[in-house]
Amino acid sequence: MTIDMTAFDDMWSAIAPIGLDPGTGGYRRFAWTREDAELREWFAGAASARGLDLVIDRAGNQWAWWGDPDAAVAAGRPGVVIGSHLDSVPDGGAFDGPLGVVSALAVIDALKARGFEPTRPIGVASFIDEEGARFGIACAGSRLITGQLDAGTAKALRDADGVTMAEAMTAAGHAVEHVGPDAETLSRIGTFVELHVEQGRGLVDLGRPVAVASVIRPHGRWHVDLDGEANHAGTTRLEDRRDPMLNLARTVLAANAAATELGCVATVGKIRVEPNGVNAIPSRVTAWLDARGPGEAAVRAVVEVVARQSGSVPVQESWTPETVFDEPLAQRLSALLDDAPMLATGAGHDAGVLATAGLSTAMLFVRNPTGISHSPAEFAEPDDCHRGVEALAAVTEELTR
Amino acid sequence: MTIDMTAFDDMWSAIAPIGLDPGTGGYRRFAWTREDAELREWFAGAASARGLDLVIDRAGNQWAWWGDPDAAVAAGRPGVVIGSHLDSVPDGGAFDGPLGVVSALAVIDALKARGFEPTRPIGVASFIDEEGARFGIACAGSRLITGQLDAGTAKALRDADGVTMAEAMTAAGHAVEHVGPDAETLSRIGTFVELHVEQGRGLVDLGRPVAVASVIRPHGRWHVDLDGEANHAGTTRLEDRRDPMLNLARTVLAANAAATELGCVATVGKIRVEPNGVNAIPSRVTAWLDARGPGEAAVRAVVEVVARQSGSVPVQESWTPETVFDEPLAQRLSALLDDAPMLATGAGHDAGVLATAGLSTAMLFVRNPTGISHSPAEFAEPDDCHRGVEALAAVTEELTR
Repeated sequence: MTIDMTAFDDMWSAIAPIGLDPGTGGYRRFAWTREDAELREWFAGAASARGLDLVIDRAGNQWAWWGDPDAAVAAGRPGVVIGSHLDSVPDGGAFDGPLGVVSALAVIDALKARGFEPTRPIGVASFIDEEGARFGIACAGSRLITGQLDAGTAKALRDADGVTMAEAMTAAGHAVEHVGPDAETLSRIGTFVELHVEQGRGLVDLGRPVAVASVIRPHGRWHVDLDGEANHAGTTRLEDRRDPMLNLARTVLAANAAATELGCVATVGKIRVEPNGVNAIPSRVTAWLDARGPGEAAVRAVVEVVARQSGSVPVQESWTPETVFDEPLAQRLSALLDDAPMLATGAGHDAGVLATAGLSTAMLFVRNPTGISHSPAEFAEPDDCHRGVEALAAVTEELTR
Repeated sequence: MTIDMTAFDDMWSAIAPIGLDPGTGGYRRFAWTREDAELREWFAGAASARGLDLVIDRAGNQWAWWGDPDAAVAAGRPGVVIGSHLDSVPDGGAFDGPLGVVSALAVIDALKARGFEPTRPIGVASFIDEEGARFGIACAGSRLITGQLDAGTAKALRDADGVTMAEAMTAAGHAVEHVGPDAETLSRIGTFVELHVEQGRGLVDLGRPVAVASVIRPHGRWHVDLDGEANHAGTTRLEDRRDPMLNLARTVLAANAAATELGCVATVGKIRVEPNGVNAIPSRVTAWLDARGPGEAAVRAVVEVVARQSGSVPVQESWTPETVFDEPLAQRLSALLDDAPMLATGAGHDAGVLATAGLSTAMLFVRNPTGISHSPAEFAEPDDCHRGVEALAAVTEELTR
């Protein structure tokens, strides 16, 4: 199908300045901030301009409906939802999230332009707080409505300034007393398809613009407290020290070696040093470990190495088992898209959370020439973005024909 | 000489709550903060209660004079100054600094109580910003008045919140336009004696309560930027990464190994990770190195190892060559104090800065049973503190008889 990409390009330009750090070229779009409010307002305006009905669910996720989702539920043929999220990691790229939301809105334009009349309602979703950059828990919006994240736990989470999620929601005008599982919202989703920039070089290696997701590899987050003894950096003999920075160094290298051996990835991307003074041996270093791999046993073995090397027990902050997307659906989409390749991914997504909740879910990936994500270097060629819109339009039409 | 220690104990209790973190038992007394203002006010009150004349110099250091320091300068017999500082490192101990100031005031009480009439004025000094905890440069107060720290450079330093030293001084009511070398203040110092808690276990090993300082070992601070490539922690293969956390780990271990081999101490006590996200490979890790040793060549060799291992050039933030205190004076004080042992130290002090500026300077150390400093575990037994007051009183009497 030939699609006029003007709408896509215009939307892409409209949100480009929001949360941009001109110094780094990266984005800071964190949940329930001013930048987030701007993006939510932009999404509401885009929905309204297309005649879509905007619904905010109990967690704050935004849903823009073409057609009546509740009538469809009553008729036993719930809608097809496409979309992603608009928030970012600290200094993140422009594509992770927004590409899926903007592409979904462009699909609505394309289908409407050619007079297509869907037999089921089509929703565009914009999930809140997918990255967890502010409160530390990824996919908070989708986890809350599916009950995978307890509302009380979530609302008590604090950001780096000590602000709780409940306070942040209230400040942004969201009714915190309603936060929690949202069966009504979930009942409207017959199928969810999330388009996303690829976060590796799979499509580059294959020479293809678009892929269909097969599985999300199991992954988890841990933190480990390395205790030492604060002391003066100038007067304490090396043999009298208990310096947790040395423990950190050995632990980081051990985690890397274990991950290499076991075919996993392990990352220590966040560190807290106390008191973090130039002339003070630290009293404590806290390190966060992100580990993912082909199977649970391999990932757990990496964490076990960290425990042994550091002499401290890693505290699990999150664990996501392998997520297998709806396999017949993935095969059907791949066939529809000129036998698009099927790729596994190490990244978590709202689509994975919904799949875990038992919903029929699929993902499309768009080629990323750098393979880099969560960084200003994250990229997708405009041509490949347009191929993504075409693929998502074809999929949406197929599922609502 | 028998001294009534009530005054010492009362002063010690009076300042104990200021800047105390009840959670850790540590202190946060940073230059030009509310806590600092409270301590300065307390010092001014203590001076006034003893009939001492308070002078604030161009950098903000406080001097409380018994006798007319300028008449003494005119007569060619400038005064004897005793004292130290009241500020702390983050989560620092109670003794590093305050022990010297409180002991000095107790000495005034003791000498006055026994009707001693000094032949030269006696000053009590309380230096501002010795630890450099807020703006990163240690001994800022003494370095400013001796011209070892440029006033413009100092005033432009920023704290973690982006506040400049000039702004902090202004907010605290200090006239920033006068900050700079202060020859008048220096001219009043015939001899300076700083009493300080020991920051190692030298006196514990020797079984003695008080020592005299011989030298301050050469020491410096550097920072080194380890650049990497920000990327997604879940989707980037280990072999495709440029992860600066691994470079940090290897560099920390190399610095420790080199310091061990060369008889130095090397500490990486402060780290900055960008963006410091759990699921992002860092784009950059900045590490601060504090290195000290028996001689400049050894310390420089440690820094050279850091440069080679990290592949990045360490940027020198400060360098202090070996400081030798006034040797005849040190011998005289040691003899006076029952042949007190002479100890070298790896820590910088305002006394060292004044010695570097050519003033006659000495230090007394008081036993620290833990050997720990810059930590809530820093300690000195009350009895040893009292021995310190007696020693400082004997020294002050000897020098002003």
